[in-house]
Amino acid sequence: MASYTGLALLALSLPLSWAQQYPDCQNGPLSNNSVCDTGLSARERAQALVDALTLEEKLNLTHNNSPGVKRLGLPAYNWWGEALHGVAAAPGVQFSSSGNWSYATSFPQPISIASSFDDELFYAIGTVISTEARAFNNGKRSGLDYWTPNINPFRDPRWGRGQETPGEDTYLVKRYIDNMVTSLQGGRNPTSYKVIATCKHYTAYDLEGWQGNTRYGFDAIVSPQDLSEYYMQPFQQCARDTKVASIMCSYNAINGVPACANSYTIQSVLRGHWNWTADENYITSDCTSIQNMFTDHHAFDTRQQTVAAALNAGVDVDCGYYNPTFLPSAYSQGLFQESTLDKSLLRLYSGLAKAGYFDPPDSPWRSVTWDNVSTPEAEDLALKVAEEGIILLKNDGTLPLIPPEDRNLTLLLAGGWINATEQLQGNYAGPARTLVSPWMALQNVSNLNLVVVKWYENPMLRAIDTQADAILYIDATNEGADEGKDRNTIRWDAMQVDAVEMLATLGRPLIVAHMGEQVDDSALLNNPNVSSLLWAGYPGMLGGQALINIVTGKTAPAGRMPVTQYPADYVHQVPMTDMNLRPDPQTGNPGRTYKWFDNATVEFGFGLHYTNLSTAIGTPSNTSFDIQSLVSACNFTTYSHVDQCPFYPSGSTSSSLSVNVTNSGTTASDFVALAFIAGEYGPTPRPLKSLVAYQRLFDIKPGSSQTASLNLTLGSLSRYDEKGNQILYPGNYRVLIDVPTQNTWEFVLTGSEYVMDEWPQV
Amino acid sequence: MASYTGLALLALSLPLSWAQQYPDCQNGPLSNNSVCDTGLSARERAQALVDALTLEEKLNLTHNNSPGVKRLGLPAYNWWGEALHGVAAAPGVQFSSSGNWSYATSFPQPISIASSFDDELFYAIGTVISTEARAFNNGKRSGLDYWTPNINPFRDPRWGRGQETPGEDTYLVKRYIDNMVTSLQGGRNPTSYKVIATCKHYTAYDLEGWQGNTRYGFDAIVSPQDLSEYYMQPFQQCARDTKVASIMCSYNAINGVPACANSYTIQSVLRGHWNWTADENYITSDCTSIQNMFTDHHAFDTRQQTVAAALNAGVDVDCGYYNPTFLPSAYSQGLFQESTLDKSLLRLYSGLAKAGYFDPPDSPWRSVTWDNVSTPEAEDLALKVAEEGIILLKNDGTLPLIPPEDRNLTLLLAGGWINATEQLQGNYAGPARTLVSPWMALQNVSNLNLVVVKWYENPMLRAIDTQADAILYIDATNEGADEGKDRNTIRWDAMQVDAVEMLATLGRPLIVAHMGEQVDDSALLNNPNVSSLLWAGYPGMLGGQALINIVTGKTAPAGRMPVTQYPADYVHQVPMTDMNLRPDPQTGNPGRTYKWFDNATVEFGFGLHYTNLSTAIGTPSNTSFDIQSLVSACNFTTYSHVDQCPFYPSGSTSSSLSVNVTNSGTTASDFVALAFIAGEYGPTPRPLKSLVAYQRLFDIKPGSSQTASLNLTLGSLSRYDEKGNQILYPGNYRVLIDVPTQNTWEFVLTGSEYVMDEWPQV
Repeated sequence: MASYTGLALLALSLPLSWAQQYPDCQNGPLSNNSVCDTGLSARERAQALVDALTLEEKLNLTHNNSPGVKRLGLPAYNWWGEALHGVAAAPGVQFSSSGNWSYATSFPQPISIASSFDDELFYAIGTVISTEARAFNNGKRSGLDYWTPNINPFRDPRWGRGQETPGEDTYLVKRYIDNMVTSLQGGRNPTSYKVIATCKHYTAYDLEGWQGNTRYGFDAIVSPQDLSEYYMQPFQQCARDTKVASIMCSYNAINGVPACANSYTIQSVLRGHWNWTADENYITSDCTSIQNMFTDHHAFDTRQQTVAAALNAGVDVDCGYYNPTFLPSAYSQGLFQESTLDKSLLRLYSGLAKAGYFDPPDSPWRSVTWDNVSTPEAEDLALKVAEEGIILLKNDGTLPLIPPEDRNLTLLLAGGWINATEQLQGNYAGPARTLVSPWMALQNVSNLNLVVVKWYENPMLRAIDTQADAILYIDATNEGADEGKDRNTIRWDAMQVDAVEMLATLGRPLIVAHMGEQVDDSALLNNPNVSSLLWAGYPGMLGGQALINIVTGKTAPAGRMPVTQYPADYVHQVPMTDMNLRPDPQTGNPGRTYKWFDNATVEFGFGLHYTNLSTAIGTPSNTSFDIQSLVSACNFTTYSHVDQCPFYPSGSTSSSLSVNVTNSGTTASDFVALAFIAGEYGPTPRPLKSLVAYQRLFDIKPGSSQTASLNLTLGSLSRYDEKGNQILYPGNYRVLIDVPTQNTWEFVLTGSEYVMDEWPQV
Repeated sequence: MASYTGLALLALSLPLSWAQQYPDCQNGPLSNNSVCDTGLSARERAQALVDALTLEEKLNLTHNNSPGVKRLGLPAYNWWGEALHGVAAAPGVQFSSSGNWSYATSFPQPISIASSFDDELFYAIGTVISTEARAFNNGKRSGLDYWTPNINPFRDPRWGRGQETPGEDTYLVKRYIDNMVTSLQGGRNPTSYKVIATCKHYTAYDLEGWQGNTRYGFDAIVSPQDLSEYYMQPFQQCARDTKVASIMCSYNAINGVPACANSYTIQSVLRGHWNWTADENYITSDCTSIQNMFTDHHAFDTRQQTVAAALNAGVDVDCGYYNPTFLPSAYSQGLFQESTLDKSLLRLYSGLAKAGYFDPPDSPWRSVTWDNVSTPEAEDLALKVAEEGIILLKNDGTLPLIPPEDRNLTLLLAGGWINATEQLQGNYAGPARTLVSPWMALQNVSNLNLVVVKWYENPMLRAIDTQADAILYIDATNEGADEGKDRNTIRWDAMQVDAVEMLATLGRPLIVAHMGEQVDDSALLNNPNVSSLLWAGYPGMLGGQALINIVTGKTAPAGRMPVTQYPADYVHQVPMTDMNLRPDPQTGNPGRTYKWFDNATVEFGFGLHYTNLSTAIGTPSNTSFDIQSLVSACNFTTYSHVDQCPFYPSGSTSSSLSVNVTNSGTTASDFVALAFIAGEYGPTPRPLKSLVAYQRLFDIKPGSSQTASLNLTLGSLSRYDEKGNQILYPGNYRVLIDVPTQNTWEFVLTGSEYVMDEWPQV
């Protein structure tokens, strides 16, 4: 979205005269229009509405702040809703300043949600968010569509919006999408939408503002291989597999063509190759992104050509004012057909119809009220998510820190985030009923003396003066990245490291909670007197409580890294503007993500526990598989696409790889079983490994075992060639369990190459 | 100062237990100490206090948050006060949340103050600020020293703190210093200080955070010539001439040596060459800058060596916690002498003594109260300053925009700053009693229909729909620079230009008010349908009123550019890290400031009026002067330094150049008479020209004239050689009046070179 800089104040100072209203299908003018006939299909209903519109009215309905049509009783509707990790304020979502409707459940940021590697949790979050969204809709405070999730893979550690995403790995991102979008929309292939989800930002969008390059005018040069294998994979999941209702096109250009007028990505790939052609499958622009095609990309000579290009490419909503201003004159100039405009409106109103916008007040979801918002159950879930997402990066046994029963433990609290509240939420957050900082949470721990270091005091002197038994340092880097602004560095501020190092000289138990964005923790990992290190990211409204529950052992940590933690000098090795994933000796690009970069400070998938957990593969008997046999064994009535077909490592009777996890320690713990694939197959260079399956096991008791069932597919075995085709190659394969690898199972694929997916060429 | 990111919340959440207290010289333990004896000199009183201190106590008194000495009744004292353009919040300045002490007069930012080119105004502002500061001090809400002014010359248009300074020209900066510091301190050579001013940041500090370079670790490589001629000139004014009480050393290093341990800049130049050795002349560090010498500059092996280096270099206050933590062990290690510490404390307490800290309650300034804060007179001054600082950059006659008497004029208001309030203040602002936005001010203009464009509306459509008679677009760029963060670009956002250009297509009177930072206005200047352009910068608490007074002709504009407005591509021609002022074909550096860069979009000193104002020089009869005669004519009992000696262009009877200014138009107006010097003398390359004198004339009536007396000095004629020596050279000289030049007076200097100032070498 466009940032509000300098505008928020103005927006706030204007009186609120707006409400999201349902059309009156009982007594209003529309009651005589078939759009209100629940017996018809959404498409038929939308057609009836569009048939009733004059050209002038149609020309006015393709922007986010839609005026509706008073004559017909079609209310104004603002398409711009936000709900990234809870219902959030937006032009189309209004919170009250106090009392009812003044808050909603505020979950951790997606980067911290993803760290849980817990599919069921992703689903449960989407269910809460969409229920609360329907409550706000019933309260006339929001619409029925939300511009979430943000699923561009987190390519570069400097990206200002990486916190909004489920991380760098496409498999994890796709699992997140499938669960989140499905639960937001009210189930798989729902007959009506609970709410409309919007996958954004299509595509290759992951640069905000870096050394003078801005997202508004950035041209992402991406190879077909990287596009197909990486940047587009989340959108394939959204469009082809999870069937999201709506997609947002992005600010940037892809290989010279702005995303919102890119017939290759929109027509050839999205609507063509992925068949994203359901009646309601509409596209919204990002805010001002149509205008930016004129002002920043200079892609068209006139403003009329610009809006026509977006409409002709299949962009149906303009978040901005270009469409209402210039569509009329573009039409006069013959730059688009009325039938094209009709198609856009049919998609839009099919979407609203399928979300029940024209249904009677007794229709599903209309009974949800304020009582269903931020319920105790929803807030418990927010706490659970936060706990599941916290990652233990280092521990010498200091954690969990359990105060003794017979005396008070003196704990020194230092660092800039000890009383963090709003910061715990990250961006795109709505107001929460309560925000619990670490300091607040600690006040409920018994047998604890708290010593709070003010920011201008030396924590070391205070630790000495107060004879602190242990130290908890909680902080994030001061260089804030955010929407519109990428990081320049990925290192801790030298003064923060200095503070920790001074504390470390005391030789007392020293726990560091790294909050906010990932930066290089080397100095903390390498310092033997830093006892323990946690990464808690943006843990949301109850994030302080979650952190303290982990610290005191009330909950055992089991989160895993959703991204690579890069060494600080990585930013000098590759510019943000270089989109290539593979290492390139010529440019010095050392490779991106754990698949291509082999010098991580902390690896993707890493995470420690409070107990000893070991894994064993239930080794399959087969170690050789014929490609053609694998393909022909697939049941194509069950699986629409060959990459979805199961790979049966133990023969056709068992569709999963079993991994047995044993807790030989003394603390019950969750454990995320992870399976990667590596090997010598397909074109070089070859990725170091790729995540292909995971399962979070819960509460494994000391001395007991649980078994994860990791489902592999033929897609798990595939590679992408330089044209972007997805292919099964003969060769040597290895399944690697856990990070670092605990177990390996080797097998071979024989036979000849099989093209699973032929990628559309430009 | 260090930024508060992530810390402000914490600071605010801690209870306020602190107050700035005077020591009890009547009944407290100090009543028996000579420090309370008003009959002694400040130095003698400080000596008595230091004599009473134990070593341990001394070791604890050199940081900003001084604990005092309870045993002696010496109260805690926080040296960190801020008052850049009005008393402002700081650890040593506490505002209440409402009622008394909840605000102070908030003047425009120094960049907008400087645009007035009005010395008397500078002085009047300092008088108000210091009076209000004494009121806060009497209210136990602030101390007696303030870390203002910020006088690093504004070298690069990207600098995030340029707004805090009086611009790029050393002559203007020096005039600002002389008036501001003198009025803050209570007059020239005062027997006691009204408040202690602190010139910052010493020296060559003007980079915040740019492409990964941070102020904390930046090493400014500066030639002796640039150092002497440019970067150090403001500090020469402070130390040698205006005799500021205190100076702050900066974060950066200068030619490899951190500023706060730089014996060359501190000992050789400041205390040696400029003789800044009054008893109370103390130096404070910038906040954490001593720590940064260890953490970012890696200048020392141990923290003890770091604090000792600063103390030994003559830095007396550590804003930070390094001194209290590591001075004791540094002393044990023999890294400094107790006598050195004594010298620091003598300077600090001489300063406080001279500010009346140990004086009885009936001493001067102790009767100032809350009633003296934000008085109507002070607020009138704030309005006047704002009006005087607004600059007219373009006008086709549309301005002033005076509504007709017989009907209402419909004015469309658009842009992100139409209702700006806090934004008008800029950074380092204290809370104000009221903040008046442009929109608010317009509500008091009669015969006006206001149409306010919401930010998501198309201003062009609204202008058409509402049949607007005229348009006022008020905005600043969205890329905010600030402390810690430099700009990457100096261009308007493309969408802002687009909005103006769309409005311009209507062909109606279109006035643009450019607020905030200077960026390239070419698109607006070159568009014939942009009728008028104003630059109003950061005009302070009544800035909206000031702008509207100018727009409606209640006040005529006469401000002048205090900086060069560079073309947008300037940022690609020279990196911020290149400190060189002179053009360099080898590096591509096109030169810095109007003295060396000849391709400005808007020139330094430029500014239009609502009337026709022409200038004429009272041409002196002499056109040839002998250097040795000029020097020997100087009265060295009156002038301590030869550069201060008057240059008598009309012979020894008249010490100034007279410039007659005639208003041949129909509107009364102020006018700033400007004199530059250029010519063929001294080493090449030669500056294009240099400002040597100015005078603002007031309210020149239509048809009448006024005469400015521009005082030149021998310093006005000087140049600097590669070693930094200031020299009078024989050659051809030209005095240029106004921008662009209206009149020229040519003369020659004969004789041989004369070294006015031999610059200390490293």
